[in-house]
Amino acid sequence: MTRRRLHLNAFLMNTGHHEASWRLPESDPYAHVELGHYVRLARIAERGTFDSLFLADGPQLWSNFAQRPAGALEPLTLLTALATATEHIGLIATASTSYNSPYNLARKFASLDIISGGRAGWNIVTTAGAEAARNFGLDAEPAHAERYARAAEFLDVALKLWDSWEDDAIVADKAAGVWGDDTKIHPPRHRGKYFGVEGALNVPRSPQGYPLLVQAGSSKDGKAFAARYAEAVFTAQQTLKDAQDFYADLKSLTAAAGRNPDHIKVLPGIVPVIGSTQAEARANEQVLEDHIVYTHGVARLESLLQLPAGTLELDGLLPADLPPESSIEGARSRYTLVVELARRERLTVRQLIGRLGGGRGHLTFTGTPEQVADAIEEWFTLGAADGFNIMPAVLPSGLDAFVDHVVPILRTRGLLRTAYDGTGSEGTELEGAGGTGRPRQTLRERYGLPRPANQYVTPAPGSPALARV
Amino acid sequence: MTRRRLHLNAFLMNTGHHEASWRLPESDPYAHVELGHYVRLARIAERGTFDSLFLADGPQLWSNFAQRPAGALEPLTLLTALATATEHIGLIATASTSYNSPYNLARKFASLDIISGGRAGWNIVTTAGAEAARNFGLDAEPAHAERYARAAEFLDVALKLWDSWEDDAIVADKAAGVWGDDTKIHPPRHRGKYFGVEGALNVPRSPQGYPLLVQAGSSKDGKAFAARYAEAVFTAQQTLKDAQDFYADLKSLTAAAGRNPDHIKVLPGIVPVIGSTQAEARANEQVLEDHIVYTHGVARLESLLQLPAGTLELDGLLPADLPPESSIEGARSRYTLVVELARRERLTVRQLIGRLGGGRGHLTFTGTPEQVADAIEEWFTLGAADGFNIMPAVLPSGLDAFVDHVVPILRTRGLLRTAYDGTGSEGTELEGAGGTGRPRQTLRERYGLPRPANQYVTPAPGSPALARV
Ligand SMILES: Cc1cc2nc3c(=O)[nH]c(=O)nc-3n(C[C@H](O)[C@H](O)[C@H](O)COP(=O)(O)O)c2cc1C
Ligand SMILES: Cc1cc2nc3c(=O)[nH]c(=O)nc-3n(C[C@H](O)[C@H](O)[C@H](O)COP(=O)(O)O)c2cc1C
Repeated sequence: MTRRRLHLNAFLMNTGHHEASWRLPESDPYAHVELGHYVRLARIAERGTFDSLFLADGPQLWSNFAQRPAGALEPLTLLTALATATEHIGLIATASTSYNSPYNLARKFASLDIISGGRAGWNIVTTAGAEAARNFGLDAEPAHAERYARAAEFLDVALKLWDSWEDDAIVADKAAGVWGDDTKIHPPRHRGKYFGVEGALNVPRSPQGYPLLVQAGSSKDGKAFAARYAEAVFTAQQTLKDAQDFYADLKSLTAAAGRNPDHIKVLPGIVPVIGSTQAEARANEQVLEDHIVYTHGVARLESLLQLPAGTLELDGLLPADLPPESSIEGARSRYTLVVELARRERLTVRQLIGRLGGGRGHLTFTGTPEQVADAIEEWFTLGAADGFNIMPAVLPSGLDAFVDHVVPILRTRGLLRTAYDGTGSEGTELEGAGGTGRPRQTLRERYGLPRPANQYVTPAPGSPALARV
Repeated sequence: MTRRRLHLNAFLMNTGHHEASWRLPESDPYAHVELGHYVRLARIAERGTFDSLFLADGPQLWSNFAQRPAGALEPLTLLTALATATEHIGLIATASTSYNSPYNLARKFASLDIISGGRAGWNIVTTAGAEAARNFGLDAEPAHAERYARAAEFLDVALKLWDSWEDDAIVADKAAGVWGDDTKIHPPRHRGKYFGVEGALNVPRSPQGYPLLVQAGSSKDGKAFAARYAEAVFTAQQTLKDAQDFYADLKSLTAAAGRNPDHIKVLPGIVPVIGSTQAEARANEQVLEDHIVYTHGVARLESLLQLPAGTLELDGLLPADLPPESSIEGARSRYTLVVELARRERLTVRQLIGRLGGGRGHLTFTGTPEQVADAIEEWFTLGAADGFNIMPAVLPSGLDAFVDHVVPILRTRGLLRTAYDGTGSEGTELEGAGGTGRPRQTLRERYGLPRPANQYVTPAPGSPALARV
């Protein structure tokens, strides 16, 4: 029996996940628009045999423009460039179902999947906030339930588009002058509440069939959506107990939705802050906290909690009478996490801002490489995680440190691969993917998931049924 | 005084522009989805010191799926991959103003411009046809005038978005904790007939300010649009006289719109079919014509001319009573070109299909390298063209032949550069754009155009006014 292995995803974000990381002497404040920075990060992650890397995104410029690096290269564009600079690592882009059309987005992901040789993933988000809505002709953010209803229809259409070419639709019979087989093309002819999409996609079915489907909302609606569609889930969890509850809940929701619960991988986010001793790690963390501008943090917290400006006092507690989660139309599960964290640990506003500075609600693991590896192993073996979304506080140094010091321990313990399975041809796509050697794994294979069947193809009698993931 | 130089754009299309090219023994019928094929083509064009390369596009799968290679990698995705495989050549992607939103598209082009170091161009199209419309929730194609009205508003919004960051909006003051200067961010706050876009773009102003703006519709509305916005124009012209008229017309429309007529470059498309003798060239052309499936051609022609199926006879002429151009809601100028070509030369339907097989209405130049160079020089010097859109009938061999045999003649005659200006650092972006040597030219510089001023910045008194292109 094969041993259960940990999955690792590198969550890349300009100079790092800590809001003050850009102020360190080592940091490049223009990193967010430099391809070279991201190429370096991708190659570090590939050296650490990570399953994938990931870019967050939202179609708006945040109002805290003055305070920290803002804006970013569009993720699908950046990942396409990274596809040519790497060979194995999966490439997961965030894109919004609220502010895209299915035809254009399905095509872009299929194109990235082809160009990368089956390494594309989509972090499906519904995008909280009025700023984004106002960039797309709306006056206000659509309601939470409405956004998730649109997301579900978006996925149904996208799946039809990705299946609209059977894998063998191209005939290429030069002598007969027949290039394609019309009977293997299946136009969606979709007419729904949010979308009308008549025709087939204008790109063939890609190596993975379609990108790995990832989801990152943890509200009730978010979990229901994940149970139905997602193959991997990013989540922010502050305690082992919460993470175990979330894990069990999502697996059972997935089973209840008629899917194999092994086919959804749960990846909590962690911010590792490493030092050669615990004291050194804590000192590294302190340097970051010393660079936080607390007045900015207060304003941001007031906005998340939907409080009028000036409500919060830096050395006071959160008010007792905050609104219930159900009244929040924005990032619902993040709201609850922050409020519960503050109450559970009786944090002052200042302390809360310090705790959120690293990962905006994700757990910070501060310690020696052994301690970080222990924490990872504990969550992994005690039913809290199938792997982790690694969110270094400072980039590239934090990712380097993780790969140099934590990855070897995880490998020694047999938790992480020591090399990528499947070598294929040596070069990148640019040299042309040769047919020599064992083919490289697709992203979906690396996560231990089956290639999805095409909904328009009836499996031949007697053939093993391909699971709809 | 510097000599006027020819501009060359390589129009890449899977196995070539001739509809039967995929049937030749040398052709790879899967080329349209192979990155390696396009990398090879881009490098050939770069060897020929072309200004740029270009990908056409439409968001639909054509109904002639069975007959010839269909579908394609999404152009912005493919060009991003090509950006990392090339160093100098401009990268022009087609994208539709009818089926995109300005915020998303402006961001993608800005990202490509940054990643490519200032080499992005946008072929702005309004997309004819009901197939595309039905993939975006519409029942029918929007009217021709309506599409161009939307295109104009789309451009106004996109230009506001690209100018929404001043070039020096990033301050990066680590000590003070100030990353950006809010006063240098200019949210569009646009509310128009087709679009509402409130906020600034979430990516900084790119090396070129914005992509080179290219246009390719030649109807009256199309020309008016080009005169207002375009910096380069692709056009299909069948005779020197027509090309001269078009050229003069567009330059004077551009002047009448208050712009410098030198700041719009006219690039007719030509399909060069080359042989070492004229007879060999003609034989090469004949091989292609022999591979045309004429029944398919008839159906396609009936669709373009909006005639009921079965109207046309292969060895007859076009009917005399075709509808006027103004009644065509689709590709209006292409319709007129085809009808005029058939009437002028009294072509049978079979002959017309043969003539259109190569370039779908673009002129085929068949001959020796000298003859092709002569034709190019003639059009260039007699006021018909600022350069050409080179559309090889077969790819990659036709592009190779043009670069190996026609380019040297053009260089000897002093019509074409012998090397790219500006070498910059040696490697591609992936190695990081170093600051050594003369910086590489941007695409806009290569076309002899100024970097556009930012509409939100008043030029300092006494400084040379930066032209709005
Ligand atoms: C690791 C992680 C990454 C996320 N990345 C994004 C993102 O890039 N864009 C986005 O709009 N939301 C992102 N989210 C937020 C969620 O997708 C979701 O929009 C938010 O939590 C609100 O959903 P909910 O109300 O279901 O919790 C992310 C969440 C997590 C845990
Ligand atoms: C060289 C060339 C390339 C073109 N490429 C495209 C294209 O990729 N997509 C598209 O929709 N139209 C393309 N067109 C067509 C025009 O942009 C335009 O949509 C069509 O001619 C109808 O416009 P009109 O009615 O103004 O002539 C191209 C035209 C030319 C001359």
